[in-house]
Amino acid sequence: MAPGTDPRAIAPLDGLTILEISSFIAAPLGGLTLAELGADVIRIDPVGGGADQGRWPLAPSGISLYWTGLNQGKRSVTLNFRDAEGRRLLGDLLAASGPGGGIVLTNAGQEWLAYPALARVRPDLIHLQIQGHRDGRPAVDYTVNAATGFPLITGPEGLESPVNHVLPAWDVACGLYAAVGLLAAERRRRRTGAGSAITLALADVALAVAGHLGYLAEAQVTGTDRPRIGNHLYGGLARDFRTADGARVMAVALTRRHFADLAAATGLASTFTELERLLGADFGEEGDRYRHREVIAALLEPWFVGRTVAEVERDLAGTSVLWSRYRSFTDLVADGTLAANPMLGPITQPAVGPLLAPGSPLAVDGTAGPRPAPTLGADTAAVLAGLLGLSAADIGTLAERGIIGALAADSGPGQGAPDS
Amino acid sequence: MAPGTDPRAIAPLDGLTILEISSFIAAPLGGLTLAELGADVIRIDPVGGGADQGRWPLAPSGISLYWTGLNQGKRSVTLNFRDAEGRRLLGDLLAASGPGGGIVLTNAGQEWLAYPALARVRPDLIHLQIQGHRDGRPAVDYTVNAATGFPLITGPEGLESPVNHVLPAWDVACGLYAAVGLLAAERRRRRTGAGSAITLALADVALAVAGHLGYLAEAQVTGTDRPRIGNHLYGGLARDFRTADGARVMAVALTRRHFADLAAATGLASTFTELERLLGADFGEEGDRYRHREVIAALLEPWFVGRTVAEVERDLAGTSVLWSRYRSFTDLVADGTLAANPMLGPITQPAVGPLLAPGSPLAVDGTAGPRPAPTLGADTAAVLAGLLGLSAADIGTLAERGIIGALAADSGPGQGAPDS
Repeated sequence: MAPGTDPRAIAPLDGLTILEISSFIAAPLGGLTLAELGADVIRIDPVGGGADQGRWPLAPSGISLYWTGLNQGKRSVTLNFRDAEGRRLLGDLLAASGPGGGIVLTNAGQEWLAYPALARVRPDLIHLQIQGHRDGRPAVDYTVNAATGFPLITGPEGLESPVNHVLPAWDVACGLYAAVGLLAAERRRRRTGAGSAITLALADVALAVAGHLGYLAEAQVTGTDRPRIGNHLYGGLARDFRTADGARVMAVALTRRHFADLAAATGLASTFTELERLLGADFGEEGDRYRHREVIAALLEPWFVGRTVAEVERDLAGTSVLWSRYRSFTDLVADGTLAANPMLGPITQPAVGPLLAPGSPLAVDGTAGPRPAPTLGADTAAVLAGLLGLSAADIGTLAERGIIGALAADSGPGQGAPDS
Repeated sequence: MAPGTDPRAIAPLDGLTILEISSFIAAPLGGLTLAELGADVIRIDPVGGGADQGRWPLAPSGISLYWTGLNQGKRSVTLNFRDAEGRRLLGDLLAASGPGGGIVLTNAGQEWLAYPALARVRPDLIHLQIQGHRDGRPAVDYTVNAATGFPLITGPEGLESPVNHVLPAWDVACGLYAAVGLLAAERRRRRTGAGSAITLALADVALAVAGHLGYLAEAQVTGTDRPRIGNHLYGGLARDFRTADGARVMAVALTRRHFADLAAATGLASTFTELERLLGADFGEEGDRYRHREVIAALLEPWFVGRTVAEVERDLAGTSVLWSRYRSFTDLVADGTLAANPMLGPITQPAVGPLLAPGSPLAVDGTAGPRPAPTLGADTAAVLAGLLGLSAADIGTLAERGIIGALAADSGPGQGAPDS
């Protein structure tokens, strides 16, 4: 940074350079999270792209919106990993990546990408390896989720089959843990000079979260699994309700005050008081709200079904009741939710077009808004020239020999600027 | 750290002190994630505990297993927030928290806990405020989830009602983003001396993740929502199958090789080849596997239903096919999964007893194994003595006057040691 610069104008991760050899969700999301806070994240793919290059959903052009979403604001380099010279270039880039570099984030399992091999060229290496299981066996979000209890308690009461989440929640958590791990290790390196070899297993992420949320302790201590309860909230009061205009809303009363406000707003205060007396219950207590959830919900149902969403909104305004309307992704586009949120901004994504795309949910000084993803390989020449000092002629020869990806003159803006 | 210490024996976040004024999941998980990597995380609650003190699940003693799970390895202080002197003690602790301190993580909205108030006592303050919506309106995981599209595409095909996830995935992601934000800001502070005011909205976490996974771009570009497809995998091949012994397994073929291996292992290779010819399809392509998922799954069903899980395991061993058995939380206890995983270790949790509890999924040198959660307020006296230099007599007077929580002689081990 230049002297005299306002320190808060500097991105929190300014000066950090990360080489990401990744595919699918977790590792790319980890790199993305750091890129959004100012790190220079260079995603390095095999020529032609990784296994996630064509993952659905696709834009009409055939380009993967999943890939572009997970690689916003990175630079893209393609190397021929099948050729020893291509593999050596990766080591050269790592060695040349400066004092804020020497950081590798990967979910690839090849030996030449592992910590022992890469620490030879960069002794202060910080290397984070994402894997399926701790012992190296592969796993993906769908198999980890099946193995971790949640699908058996998700979905409508009475259903017999498991219900998988659609959100790849374990991949998301794993990617964010990876970002935490790299920053923690970089802090130690700044203090001591030492690098780190970190492994992070997707299956462990799921077990750790299930443990910290109390599921594993509950199973150990009580010997029982909690029941499948549909859209009710375990140990509290929450449920979806249909409205007069055919919409659905979720309403939640987490605290005594929430419940009192809900009872008052729905005109059911005296009804609930009478019911509490009959049942010997106190609906101010979360346990009692939960035990009697069916009768409480049955009493609330007519209130919701007699009102449109607009009327629900009017009648719950100014109360502490937590509620929201169920919305689809196209609703979020159509109702202006995306346009109204300053976290999202306009980008022009090559081969997709203009889009509202998210930046980091971490609102902090010094960070930029959303940037498009690079076109695959768009930054190969710039990165080889910038980090390794190779000439245009050298780079052209490497491309002709197939050691690096083809240099497309029209390969798009690379690490593009946001629309302004 | 002492000179001559092996730098890798030092925890990555050694020397960091975080004051956490928190409740429920996101903020506590953020602090926990940093505590697991060596930070001294001091959770400060109002006397008697926060709103999450009794959240289910509960141990037979009535203590919340949710609270203990989310506060492992922290220290616990209770202050009387209703009293100006209790509030001032929080500022005193912040001022005295050393060069690695001056860090506040909170989801509480009170003005005296906000950045402007606390930066007066600690100008280099790093303050991360978790809130529901960016504009300060409240929201919780259940309402954010309803508002973000996923419940309408989760669950069995043909179902009309929304299906909420049971895993509070947005809270989990929010807590991990908070850990990232604090570490990123602490890096900037080490370089520039400047603090940071960071806000993080739960609703923004959900929108950012939906955006980065392509859901928002898909809705914008195609104008349509993807369908509800049960336990199939959008744009690929994955589904649950019943086995001969009444279990269920999830099987996934993400790549051409996975599918070829699945076809070979199930003896269906020539059947699939014939079917590809009839349909004009190439099941090596993920799009074609997805389009024809129903017929592919129908052909696979008899293979699974004719085998026990042990036979499925035997027949898929050595192939690249990704699969796992659906398991409940009690299955994970009974089948030895928890005991076999070195991430989990034995702790003795006060008022709960012996448990296998998780440490960090980030496997890195210098970190300790799992530690129990403190008893509420167990560390009040030690923290006031250690950071503020108060005498036992001063502390006793504060407790008698109700400025701090009662000092229980039997208040448990506080930041206890793991079983060994």
